[in-house]
Amino acid sequence: MPQVNAETVADDLLGRFRAIRSLTEALAAPLSPEDQTVQSMPDVSPTKWHRGHTTWFFETFVLPVDRPDYHPYHPWFGYLFNSYYEAVGARHPRPQRGLISRPGVGEVADYRQHVDKAVEELFATGPSERALSLLELGNHHEQQHQELLLMDIKHVLWCNPMLPAYRRPPDRIDAASSGVAGHAGDAGAPAADQAARTAPRATSHAGDGWIEHPGGLIEIGHEGLGFAFDNEMPRHSVQLVPFCLSERLVTCGEWLAFMEDGGYERPELWLSDGWTLACQQQWRAPLYWVREGDDGPWKIFTLLGPKPVAAEEPVCHVSYYEADAFARWSGCRLPTEQEWEAVASSRPNDLRHAHLLEESVLHPRGSSSLFGDVWQWTASSYSPYPGFRQAKGAVGEYNGKFMVNQYVLRGGSCVTPPGHVRVTYRNFFPASARWAFSGLRLARDA
Amino acid sequence: MPQVNAETVADDLLGRFRAIRSLTEALAAPLSPEDQTVQSMPDVSPTKWHRGHTTWFFETFVLPVDRPDYHPYHPWFGYLFNSYYEAVGARHPRPQRGLISRPGVGEVADYRQHVDKAVEELFATGPSERALSLLELGNHHEQQHQELLLMDIKHVLWCNPMLPAYRRPPDRIDAASSGVAGHAGDAGAPAADQAARTAPRATSHAGDGWIEHPGGLIEIGHEGLGFAFDNEMPRHSVQLVPFCLSERLVTCGEWLAFMEDGGYERPELWLSDGWTLACQQQWRAPLYWVREGDDGPWKIFTLLGPKPVAAEEPVCHVSYYEADAFARWSGCRLPTEQEWEAVASSRPNDLRHAHLLEESVLHPRGSSSLFGDVWQWTASSYSPYPGFRQAKGAVGEYNGKFMVNQYVLRGGSCVTPPGHVRVTYRNFFPASARWAFSGLRLARDA
Amino acid sequence: MPQVNAETVADDLLGRFRAIRSLTEALAAPLSPEDQTVQSMPDVSPTKWHRGHTTWFFETFVLPVDRPDYHPYHPWFGYLFNSYYEAVGARHPRPQRGLISRPGVGEVADYRQHVDKAVEELFATGPSERALSLLELGNHHEQQHQELLLMDIKHVLWCNPMLPAYRRPPDRIDAASSGVAGHAGDAGAPAADQAARTAPRATSHAGDGWIEHPGGLIEIGHEGLGFAFDNEMPRHSVQLVPFCLSERLVTCGEWLAFMEDGGYERPELWLSDGWTLACQQQWRAPLYWVREGDDGPWKIFTLLGPKPVAAEEPVCHVSYYEADAFARWSGCRLPTEQEWEAVASSRPNDLRHAHLLEESVLHPRGSSSLFGDVWQWTASSYSPYPGFRQAKGAVGEYNGKFMVNQYVLRGGSCVTPPGHVRVTYRNFFPASARWAFSGLRLARDA
Amino acid sequence: MPQVNAETVADDLLGRFRAIRSLTEALAAPLSPEDQTVQSMPDVSPTKWHRGHTTWFFETFVLPVDRPDYHPYHPWFGYLFNSYYEAVGARHPRPQRGLISRPGVGEVADYRQHVDKAVEELFATGPSERALSLLELGNHHEQQHQELLLMDIKHVLWCNPMLPAYRRPPDRIDAASSGVAGHAGDAGAPAADQAARTAPRATSHAGDGWIEHPGGLIEIGHEGLGFAFDNEMPRHSVQLVPFCLSERLVTCGEWLAFMEDGGYERPELWLSDGWTLACQQQWRAPLYWVREGDDGPWKIFTLLGPKPVAAEEPVCHVSYYEADAFARWSGCRLPTEQEWEAVASSRPNDLRHAHLLEESVLHPRGSSSLFGDVWQWTASSYSPYPGFRQAKGAVGEYNGKFMVNQYVLRGGSCVTPPGHVRVTYRNFFPASARWAFSGLRLARDA
Repeated sequence: MPQVNAETVADDLLGRFRAIRSLTEALAAPLSPEDQTVQSMPDVSPTKWHRGHTTWFFETFVLPVDRPDYHPYHPWFGYLFNSYYEAVGARHPRPQRGLISRPGVGEVADYRQHVDKAVEELFATGPSERALSLLELGNHHEQQHQELLLMDIKHVLWCNPMLPAYRRPPDRIDAASSGVAGHAGDAGAPAADQAARTAPRATSHAGDGWIEHPGGLIEIGHEGLGFAFDNEMPRHSVQLVPFCLSERLVTCGEWLAFMEDGGYERPELWLSDGWTLACQQQWRAPLYWVREGDDGPWKIFTLLGPKPVAAEEPVCHVSYYEADAFARWSGCRLPTEQEWEAVASSRPNDLRHAHLLEESVLHPRGSSSLFGDVWQWTASSYSPYPGFRQAKGAVGEYNGKFMVNQYVLRGGSCVTPPGHVRVTYRNFFPASARWAFSGLRLARDA
Repeated sequence: MPQVNAETVADDLLGRFRAIRSLTEALAAPLSPEDQTVQSMPDVSPTKWHRGHTTWFFETFVLPVDRPDYHPYHPWFGYLFNSYYEAVGARHPRPQRGLISRPGVGEVADYRQHVDKAVEELFATGPSERALSLLELGNHHEQQHQELLLMDIKHVLWCNPMLPAYRRPPDRIDAASSGVAGHAGDAGAPAADQAARTAPRATSHAGDGWIEHPGGLIEIGHEGLGFAFDNEMPRHSVQLVPFCLSERLVTCGEWLAFMEDGGYERPELWLSDGWTLACQQQWRAPLYWVREGDDGPWKIFTLLGPKPVAAEEPVCHVSYYEADAFARWSGCRLPTEQEWEAVASSRPNDLRHAHLLEESVLHPRGSSSLFGDVWQWTASSYSPYPGFRQAKGAVGEYNGKFMVNQYVLRGGSCVTPPGHVRVTYRNFFPASARWAFSGLRLARDA
Repeated sequence: MPQVNAETVADDLLGRFRAIRSLTEALAAPLSPEDQTVQSMPDVSPTKWHRGHTTWFFETFVLPVDRPDYHPYHPWFGYLFNSYYEAVGARHPRPQRGLISRPGVGEVADYRQHVDKAVEELFATGPSERALSLLELGNHHEQQHQELLLMDIKHVLWCNPMLPAYRRPPDRIDAASSGVAGHAGDAGAPAADQAARTAPRATSHAGDGWIEHPGGLIEIGHEGLGFAFDNEMPRHSVQLVPFCLSERLVTCGEWLAFMEDGGYERPELWLSDGWTLACQQQWRAPLYWVREGDDGPWKIFTLLGPKPVAAEEPVCHVSYYEADAFARWSGCRLPTEQEWEAVASSRPNDLRHAHLLEESVLHPRGSSSLFGDVWQWTASSYSPYPGFRQAKGAVGEYNGKFMVNQYVLRGGSCVTPPGHVRVTYRNFFPASARWAFSGLRLARDA
Repeated sequence: MPQVNAETVADDLLGRFRAIRSLTEALAAPLSPEDQTVQSMPDVSPTKWHRGHTTWFFETFVLPVDRPDYHPYHPWFGYLFNSYYEAVGARHPRPQRGLISRPGVGEVADYRQHVDKAVEELFATGPSERALSLLELGNHHEQQHQELLLMDIKHVLWCNPMLPAYRRPPDRIDAASSGVAGHAGDAGAPAADQAARTAPRATSHAGDGWIEHPGGLIEIGHEGLGFAFDNEMPRHSVQLVPFCLSERLVTCGEWLAFMEDGGYERPELWLSDGWTLACQQQWRAPLYWVREGDDGPWKIFTLLGPKPVAAEEPVCHVSYYEADAFARWSGCRLPTEQEWEAVASSRPNDLRHAHLLEESVLHPRGSSSLFGDVWQWTASSYSPYPGFRQAKGAVGEYNGKFMVNQYVLRGGSCVTPPGHVRVTYRNFFPASARWAFSGLRLARDA
């Protein structure tokens, strides 16, 4: 194995740092100061908070490593932009992030520039290995918040009865300039149809489309040189029974069939907690599905505005409860994360073809890759791997302390930054969460 | 009595319309788009909502009167900016006003200009009497929202742990330019001291400062030509027993004495509902009072930033429950609104000397006027006067439907626009409300 | 005026003490230990708690007056049976009274006997004037709890889907013994019809049935020798405008007309708070009205079991909000308490003919008396009379501290013990309360 | 393998049916009708509900199998006593079970006798295999409710500030008869000391007391003839890394050390959700621990009344969050359920020596058995085994639909009926639950 040159590593990290920091600003660019201030539910954070928090992460965990005399930019930003790190002190209550109008977006931009400059200086003077390691963590951390930023602003805009778009569809920009105006939703359908044509996928599970796996003792988890979060380690053996994994994601068309067959009205299909929640919140369709009256055609609110439901698109914004109920209805089940990884590790090239974050799309289209489009709920609760050790100090709060009452999702989504997801990557949300770009892929016993 | 010329009336109204619309914009001017978006509790509305709602009021109730073909500016603004008028259709849920980032402040400004222009055109073409009457209501309505705008943004900024000021103290602006920097609070005290010196007031109730009233059958309520809200009518007789009303407002110094005497710890001083609430919310002082630790000196958060408590200033931001408990502690009671009006109608000149909205002050100073500085809680529940009739149609929802579970306040405050308050004016809030500029004036049986 | 002999007073009080204490036990007698344990909402108290609390009142406020060495029966009963008297120490949280299975009904009965015996001994040895005065208060207090006991157990039984009766209708007892079984509700209608026939009353407001009052300066409130609560004093003058008061209570038939005319669907009829509550709780009819499906005939759950709605019966179990909405719908209004008392004091004989607590009825029937059948909501908030002074010490907490956010009801109901209500008697409940036997009588301006 | 005679099976089942039904009644016998009516929180059910529900289970699932014409005993009991079986119709809301005073305990006893008789008749006429199978399920179901009955009544009595005992300690009965009275708590300690002496156990983890397991591919889950719930199947292979399991349960003495070391104040020891809950509910010690003031000695409320904490007793009534925090504090971890079963299946004789339900004890004492005294939290979320199939029909709702957001506990407790627990038995509760008799046994990597 060739030696990895330390300088190359640092250069590479710096390049990625710059690109990631720029992407965050690009993602916020279409949003007004008003947009960036709103918090629509406790799970959601304002855009300007994401921009501040990711900056605070570098300021708090990276900059002091080689500069113990580093002085924070602002006496209150540590309090305001700490998310959940108990070890670094008190913090603003999460449900009240949307009450903080100041610092405004301009001041947050200044803060970002200040910290960017300090990081650049750090690189110029030759950072320590510890600093580099935390800088890499900071990069991956900011990528996670890029996805959260898009998830969160989608929910914010959804709370507005006018259903405004995060940004206009890119083709609409051209169309507009050539005088072809129209309602966002009207034009969305043809675009989706085209996507369907150019990305041939199975449209039915009847008799087709299963990847078979013989089971047995397999290895899962991360090992080796590349970056991974602590929750992906250590690599270890698990025993699997033979199983099949679907070659494709569950589609909106299949979901419509589930709905028409009483999927949201039949308790026998649901986990008890899920049924209670579905009744309380009157779920009738995935999040972001709307229709006029009780009989109008369903539309889907996307980051580019509302559009008609396209049958062949992967279903998105369903909770674990809904995914589980659908799987039961279909006579299948959700895969475990071990099953998913067992298949994925045998198809590493899939990742290259995944539909991940593209600023002009921001909505699942479907593909033949095991990765991308939507995060895939697994049947696995989010638990430590055997021998799991969390990092010392505050960054140890990153993953381990959330290992309860959550379920693992695999594969990445259409708002996951490219280069972020991996075969061993474990995303996680509570079973009730719907605002992530979450869908499902079926499994069954062989 | 001289004839009132219709044209003069219209000119006068137009002048006031322009002045009032301008003042609203001036009040919003120090606030960023982020500031104007936040709603810190269901009672509070975002600044940009106030700007939109007052505009919607003219658009909805005034413009169509003489122009039945008037077409609303935007299809969704009726839904978004209706406050509580059931008769004009569905509306956005009040607690979710802070989730609406669009229209942004720029679009709201455009909306204001559009409606202003339409109103100017209405005046140019000679408005009907009905239109004029509703335009006058619209003026007074917008003045109410000017006070609400200031009350609300004070609460919004208070939720920020940095306690930012709405605007800098005006003297500080001069001071800053001459290089005399310093903490906002430091300079506040001398200014207040000076105010105390130039406005000599009693500092104790022992033996002094009571206005005596012989009671008997007196008339209260509005009658005649000038504008008044429907809730001030009809004028009618009430029988009063002899009583005394204090010449001055209760001060912060007196409130500190109440606190030191266990005012917030002794249930026997409190109404039962008030005691329950005070315990639940852990009240220890008026709203906006803060101190470091359990023993630091108390400061007060004002629209110009935090400042030390000044003993001679009128106490402000107390609930009806606190006002009532204080009155009981002091061996006195709150006046009824009839008592208050009986005295006020004998001192109409007082109103001219009242401390009302001055953009450079925005905080009570105290005066010898019966009016101004702080709204004064009365012992009277907000009820219809005998023979009360509410207006027909949607504007009839203005006052009558709130006549339950609220208490009347009288006199106006340091954020009430000049020209808005009257001898017969009835403000009202629930007994639990503290974010209004509310204080008290004692009464006792003669 | 003849001298009142002190011994006669004591004898009279003792007689009433015995009768009242017995009645409480008689009211509890139809209830099982299980029935007596349940608390169906925070406002409700378990039957055995009422039995214990009224006993604790005598033990705490009466017995120690002449016997400073009196030792409480049980170390925990002071904590468990104190309702809201802050001055006598901590107490069990009200919403958790239904979690206390011990003391059981047997132990509560022992406690009652113990205190009864001690009171008898007090009388035997010649009680002080202070003791007699508090004993009289204790008698009236227990009468209030007799009504509460019946209100509360009605709500408890209502929460049971089987809608069990507190006791069987008395005629049904005879019927049963003679073999004429049947569904409680079937037989209720004829009985009600008969009551309607034997108590002729106006059945329409069209052109009839108004008591006119000329208004002017009148006196209200209690004065003189008989017992009254502190909240009925002092007697004082009020100025009234001429008005009319209906000769009869609003009936179920009229209420059905209100419902059919969209009474529960038209916000313009409602106070804003009331409309919000009615929507939240999905009110469609008075409390205790039920029907099968959306179209079945309405039945009313009574203490004797469910029965069909009888058009001529006074409507009962409506909130202030509903009463106010009905009055607005009918083009009338609620009377003020001053208006009610002005009329009532001119018809003192009415009280003798009132339908008050009769153990075999327990449901309003209607009569020509101003009193009885149902408590009548007035438009008056519950406020102190001019010059009101509350008693010193813990018993001073009896009334005054509740004088906020409540509305006055007058006249007594079919579950008010005879001898308890008076012309000057002021009952009070929050505007939202429906479990009291509350109805209404209309008023209008003359 | 010898043939199992069908008649023997039936006889055996009948014997167990009788014994189990009797035990339920014996467990309820010390409780008054008032005790049996109370529901202290939504998780808790009233004693008389448990008695009714277990009866309804036989009536609903067993009796109709061979007697399709079986007519339910009461038209409302199906509604009132259905717990969560959606497939058999609507049911009374769980949080409102404590509002139902009727049927009373007497009527519930009649219901039990009626169904017992019908089951006896079923046996007399030769039940079908399906009926026998469901009868066996009914037996095990009732055993589960016996434990719940005791868990629940303990919580009910705990809500009473007098902390009454479910029953008197058996030795106290003797003592009382010989005149040796005293406070329950005083005498508890010597008894516990004695238990400690007669059951020698390790008192420290330093260097001792670990059971080593080499890991590897092992089999877990139920297979074969005996009864097991569906969630224990199918038997399957899992791969384990080498680990150690403690020979004994964590004790109160160790828990006191955890508390003294800031266990309840140090967020770094806790899962994030757990820390939030511990702060909200102000956890300072396990449930049922009390002390006077902030410094008094801790006592534990038991079903026999309060007693001093005994250092050597197993800690009980801790949530998953607390167990996990303790394990982290001690440098160890919780075992997975697979690890636990791997050890347990190698020590099947342990079960015979377990401390399970003994009516005179009802509190953990500690033993050298892997089973008994307290349920042991495992690190495993409650999930289906590979290939899990739930039963068809309503009884299929027994286990599968709860497989989300719960954690598995193993081993049985001092209130688990003997004969109920097994090596493969999986109990489960949410991570927040504390009212079960739940403790922990540590594990660590080898």
